[in-house]
Amino acid sequence: MPDLTSVVAFDVNETLSDMAPLGRRFAEVGAEPQLAATWFAGLLRDGFALTVTDSHPVFGELAQESLRVALSGVLPAAEIDDAAQFVFEGIGELEVHPDVAPAIQGLAERGLRLVTLSVGGTEVAERLLERAGIRDLFEATLSAVEAGRWKPHETPYRYALDRCGVPAAEALLVAVHPWDIDGAHRAGLRTAWVDRDGTRYPGYFATPDLVVDSLEGLAERL
Amino acid sequence: MPDLTSVVAFDVNETLSDMAPLGRRFAEVGAEPQLAATWFAGLLRDGFALTVTDSHPVFGELAQESLRVALSGVLPAAEIDDAAQFVFEGIGELEVHPDVAPAIQGLAERGLRLVTLSVGGTEVAERLLERAGIRDLFEATLSAVEAGRWKPHETPYRYALDRCGVPAAEALLVAVHPWDIDGAHRAGLRTAWVDRDGTRYPGYFATPDLVVDSLEGLAERL
Repeated sequence: MPDLTSVVAFDVNETLSDMAPLGRRFAEVGAEPQLAATWFAGLLRDGFALTVTDSHPVFGELAQESLRVALSGVLPAAEIDDAAQFVFEGIGELEVHPDVAPAIQGLAERGLRLVTLSVGGTEVAERLLERAGIRDLFEATLSAVEAGRWKPHETPYRYALDRCGVPAAEALLVAVHPWDIDGAHRAGLRTAWVDRDGTRYPGYFATPDLVVDSLEGLAERL
Repeated sequence: MPDLTSVVAFDVNETLSDMAPLGRRFAEVGAEPQLAATWFAGLLRDGFALTVTDSHPVFGELAQESLRVALSGVLPAAEIDDAAQFVFEGIGELEVHPDVAPAIQGLAERGLRLVTLSVGGTEVAERLLERAGIRDLFEATLSAVEAGRWKPHETPYRYALDRCGVPAAEALLVAVHPWDIDGAHRAGLRTAWVDRDGTRYPGYFATPDLVVDSLEGLAERL
């Protein structure tokens, strides 16, 4: 199959950003650092549940409130609001993974058009890319917020194609989350799964077109 | 508002069954017991993601494969299949919470019609209720499997109403999961949230009609 890719769309949370500092913030407020993974899975679970019933939750609001819920199980009531706020602010201070900047540079040099496509707002993505010094290499930061529906519904993928003015066959979605690969595949995009940790890909989701162990590996494959 | 409840529909996983033994099974295979909560949130996250794209995953298959994925991050490859199978078998051996049997007895004595409504299969629910000696107090064990769509989509709630032959105003959905309360509310049912652990209810989901700290508390409120 010829590679027609002209636009590469990157998921943001965990795909570009390293979320490990959030685990340290959970520990700093007195919770177990492992609660970060449970909280984030629960945040997406609840966002998807609302999407199933045709709602359109705001990621930031869901993140804050789900932090209060997660911490309500382990901290005294009087500490929860401040602790949730402290962890939430950490989302706005994350850095990109070490493989991101060099890979983005390499893809941009090959003439590929680069965008982000997140269920979160564009502002968090903008600032993340600015801190990494790679904002100018992206043509746009796109969000499910403007699309009016969360991934993995096909609406935000279609919205990204419309915004870029390309057919699905020319777009590649890059993500660490298998549910995002599955949604993009159903919307007709090509997909690349980034597996930095050597985990298993769930057989119940559509198989990715490419599997790479880092974004630098991706640059070599396109 | 007069209480018209004639049918009480119970969620099964965690609402009736105590899933704590699964954490011990994670520990027995060499993973951290906290991984149980992350795995289960991820299982629902992935099931809801598939529901967003109009798929209809089989709960048992999703549970098994998501266990392999969760354990692939922490165990050697050669151990994963056996370890996942060991934890999975634990689902079929869970017991009900201590408050379940007396509460079900009380509700049945008041003449209420009792059913289960799970995203899992009916067989697991059947055996769980049989082990607790309360299977005969339930009129039916219903499942999203037959409804053709997972909760919180309105389809399984509508299916339960059809099966029981009652309007939504006569049915009460009882669950520990806020996303289930939200889905049932949107489908027009009354709702009771069981909060055994004193956690916060997420503000982004529909408010439950009743909040109780155990099923025994529920029997007193109807």
